[in-house]
This record gives sequence, C-alpha cells and structure tokens, in this order.
Amino acid sequence: MIGGSIGLALRTKGLAGRVVGIGRDRERLEAAREMDAIDEVATSLALGVREADVVVVCTPVTRIGRDVIEAAHEAPSDVLVTDAGSTKRLLVGEVEADIRARAVFVGAHPIAGSERKGALHGRADLFEGRVCALTITEHTPADRLERARRFWRGIGCRLVEMDPARHDEALATTSHLPHAVAAALAGTVPMDQLHLAAGAYRDGTRVAGSDGTLWAGIFLANRQAMLEALSAYEATLDALRLALEARDQAAIEAWWELARRRRLKYDESQGNSAARVDES
Amino acid sequence: MIGGSIGLALRTKGLAGRVVGIGRDRERLEAAREMDAIDEVATSLALGVREADVVVVCTPVTRIGRDVIEAAHEAPSDVLVTDAGSTKRLLVGEVEADIRARAVFVGAHPIAGSERKGALHGRADLFEGRVCALTITEHTPADRLERARRFWRGIGCRLVEMDPARHDEALATTSHLPHAVAAALAGTVPMDQLHLAAGAYRDGTRVAGSDGTLWAGIFLANRQAMLEALSAYEATLDALRLALEARDQAAIEAWWELARRRRLKYDESQGNSAARVDES
Repeated sequence: MIGGSIGLALRTKGLAGRVVGIGRDRERLEAAREMDAIDEVATSLALGVREADVVVVCTPVTRIGRDVIEAAHEAPSDVLVTDAGSTKRLLVGEVEADIRARAVFVGAHPIAGSERKGALHGRADLFEGRVCALTITEHTPADRLERARRFWRGIGCRLVEMDPARHDEALATTSHLPHAVAAALAGTVPMDQLHLAAGAYRDGTRVAGSDGTLWAGIFLANRQAMLEALSAYEATLDALRLALEARDQAAIEAWWELARRRRLKYDESQGNSAARVDES
Repeated sequence: MIGGSIGLALRTKGLAGRVVGIGRDRERLEAAREMDAIDEVATSLALGVREADVVVVCTPVTRIGRDVIEAAHEAPSDVLVTDAGSTKRLLVGEVEADIRARAVFVGAHPIAGSERKGALHGRADLFEGRVCALTITEHTPADRLERARRFWRGIGCRLVEMDPARHDEALATTSHLPHAVAAALAGTVPMDQLHLAAGAYRDGTRVAGSDGTLWAGIFLANRQAMLEALSAYEATLDALRLALEARDQAAIEAWWELARRRRLKYDESQGNSAARVDES
C-alpha cells in the first residue's frame, strides 16, 4: 500500500523517469502496473535496483534492514536508499553496521497509511501534508540526507528529523500503543453484542483490521518502548478504575478532562477545530 | 444534540404538529428554534409538557429518572414519556417506583450521537438506520410500547428490545468501554508527541472530546458492568503484554488475529465490507 502510493505519487507528479516495483508476487506487481502505480516489475531485488537513483524499501520492519543492505550493494554507488518502516532503531543499527549501506541510507517513516494492504489500496495523495520522520545519526551521509529531504517533500510530506531511538519512543505512544489499544478493544467486545456497537467502537477498533504479522513485527522491533507505553496506558486506565470503584464522580470528571484537553490540543494542531460531526 | 436532532427529524418528516424544546438556558433554546429544530421554547418542564402527546427526556442519565417522573405528573394522562439515556437499569427502576410514571413510560436508547454537545450540532438524519434499544419490563404498558415503537421508527431507527439489565451489560462493552479506552489513550499520549500522531490515534481518541460530566454520570450509572468490562479489557491487554515480554511473535499474531476477525465481523454486520480507506 505504501509502495503503491509512492509509485502513484511519483508518476502523478512526474518526479521519476521510471518506477520499478519490486516484489515476490508477480501477479500483484502486474496489478500495480495496470493501475499505473509502477512502470516496470521485478521479482529480483538485485535486478530491480540495478539502475536506480533512489530505492525506497517498503517491506515489513523485520525485513527492511537486510533489504536495504542488499539494495545498497546491488544498486549504482550514487544511489539513495531510504525506507518507510514504522520502527527505526534496530534497523538503522543493522544498516549502519554495513559500511556500504550506511554510506547511501537515510531512514524514513512517512506517518500515513491505513489498515489496508497492497498496492491496489494505494493513493497518489496519501502523503500530502502528512508528517514524515527522517532519522539522523552520526553516520548519516549529508548529501543523501539532502536528497532524502527532497524525495519525501516531493511526494507531499512535511519533514521532522530526529534520532532513531527518540523516533521509536514517540511512535510507541502515538502509533503502536493506539494500534494495541484498538486490537484489545476489538478482542474484548463479544460477537453477539456487535449489533449494539456504535461510533466509539467503530472508530476505536478500525485499525484492528490491519495485518497482524506486520504489527507483531512492529511491536517486537520496538518492544521496550512498547512495554513502557503499555504500562503508562494501564496506569491511566487504573486511575479510572479506582475512581469508579470509589464512586468518585469528581475524580472521574477530572480524569476525563485531562484526556479531553489533550485531544482538543491535537485537534488544534491539525487545524481541526471545526472537525466533522460523526456518530458516536 | 440528541434533543435537537429529534426535533429536526420530527419537523423534517412532518411527524409532529408542534415541537416544544424544554431546557434551562433560554438562549440555547432560542438558537435551536432559529435553526428550526423546535417550534416553541419553555424553561419550565411543567409548562412545556402541559399539552404534550409525547415527551422525550434527553437530559444526562443522572437526571432522567426524576425528569421522567415530573413529566409524567405534569403532562396529560394519555402522554407517552420516553427517553434517550445511555444507561437504563437504574433510571427504569426509579421511574417504575412511581405508579403514574411507569404507566406512561417506555425506556429508549437511540445508539447515535457524537462527541458534540448542543442542539446546534443536531442533524435531521442522525437516527436514520441507527439502532434504538427499547427496554421492556413486566411493568411496561403495552399501548405505550406500541406508540414508542412508532415514534422511534418514525424518526428512522431500527428497533431492538431487551430488558434494562441486559441493555446495560451490552452497552458497557459496546459503548462505555470504548469511551473509557479512548479517553485513557488521549490521557496517555504526551502533548509534545502529538505532532507525530496519525490516524490510529486520531480515530482512537475521537470520543475523548465528549463531555466529561456526562460520561462520568454514565460510568457511575453502569458502574458494575463497567468495572467488569474494564477487567475483561485489561485481561486482553495483559495477554499482549505477556506475549511481548516473552518475545513470542506467534502469540502476538494469534492475539491480533482474534481481534481482526471480530472487527471484520462488525464490518460485515454494517455492510461495510468495502469500507472507506483512511489514513492510519
């Protein structure tokens, strides 16, 4: 989905001479070509990157490190290799242990996506106005960083830059925890009550429709930060439980108000102060 | 918001000769009249219901019982009194302890709404196709039940009928828990990380923008079922934590798959198998 959307964005904006889609499954690649997300298909990474100016690795986080290294070794020496992985610390470390790979690599995480999988769900405007985090370390090559900025800005992203560990800590709470919370909610509500579920359930469980193998990999690649985020979340929920056990209306209201104020702050930061009215 | 939407639906469909909006705040009532949600305003419940065929009590759950009883005593004896409360057991019990009130009352819960407050956020089509639960007990008057069915169906609802305790148990997991989960998430993510939040956070915290006094009242009015729902949820989250601590990818995937299957079941039940693609 991310790869397909990058292809569509590049082609729609005329930013690339040729877009080569690389994957294991030729049928899915052909489908991506038919929808004009890519110009050519390749089922071999080595062959697919042979003439590449830029390689964007969009595989699951558990594979990105080795795919980046292979791409760096097979592509022309002036290539930029970047990625779209949701966690960064482990894979950046893996890439930087390889001298050739670290000379051409800039880690990236476009914070956009959906619970859908596959290029067919791609959209040319997926990255428009979305934040993309670029990870910077002492090894990040300055020229490739500048090219990575142009690349991700080119397809519509707003950039933020940070080191990989800080990225992973922040994303543990802003993305990985929300996915765990959604799946836990979906896993808790009994099937035979779903006909009474309304908007709060629907929106609160949407991302539980995502791919479990992908998310298990993300959780494990960010295990420590994720465990800390879970602890913080459980402590927040415990405070509600205690107030409820004590029948303490004022404490519940204060607990809710803290959450409400943060949520309003988020809306303001998104320019959503006049957000859609939706069913709850 | 619920009251305003009922007024708009009644007037749009031509189902009522006159709609009287009753409340404490004359300015807000006048605003509701200007947007054609109501024909007349009253700041006294007794005066407002004097000629009513149907009274719909849309106050917070902690007030509904006494408002229903007052309306039943002040309105003509052939009135139907119904409500829109999110919890039912306590208030139905309170109403049924009053002989005049129980002779005219049918509890209702239209499962529609939003995090917005006030008639200005009302919509004539808010109830279109939404489920409305009618609560039935041994005291429910048969003729009023038939009129309540016609009323709620008339503004667009699909009806389900159940006893108040079963309603509250189901709604604890399908609505009250999702609200608590959303507010806990909003209360956990630090302010300085909100610029890295994406769709999973946005959708997962939407209802945290709701009114805290209202929700504290709902949680307390459904305290026991809510505590049980919280326990079930915490157990689900604990299973994820254990699998993560044990670095057990297969267990995390199995945990996720259970959630994903339930969520897909919900989508199917909503006819959403081709649901919107949205940013996560």
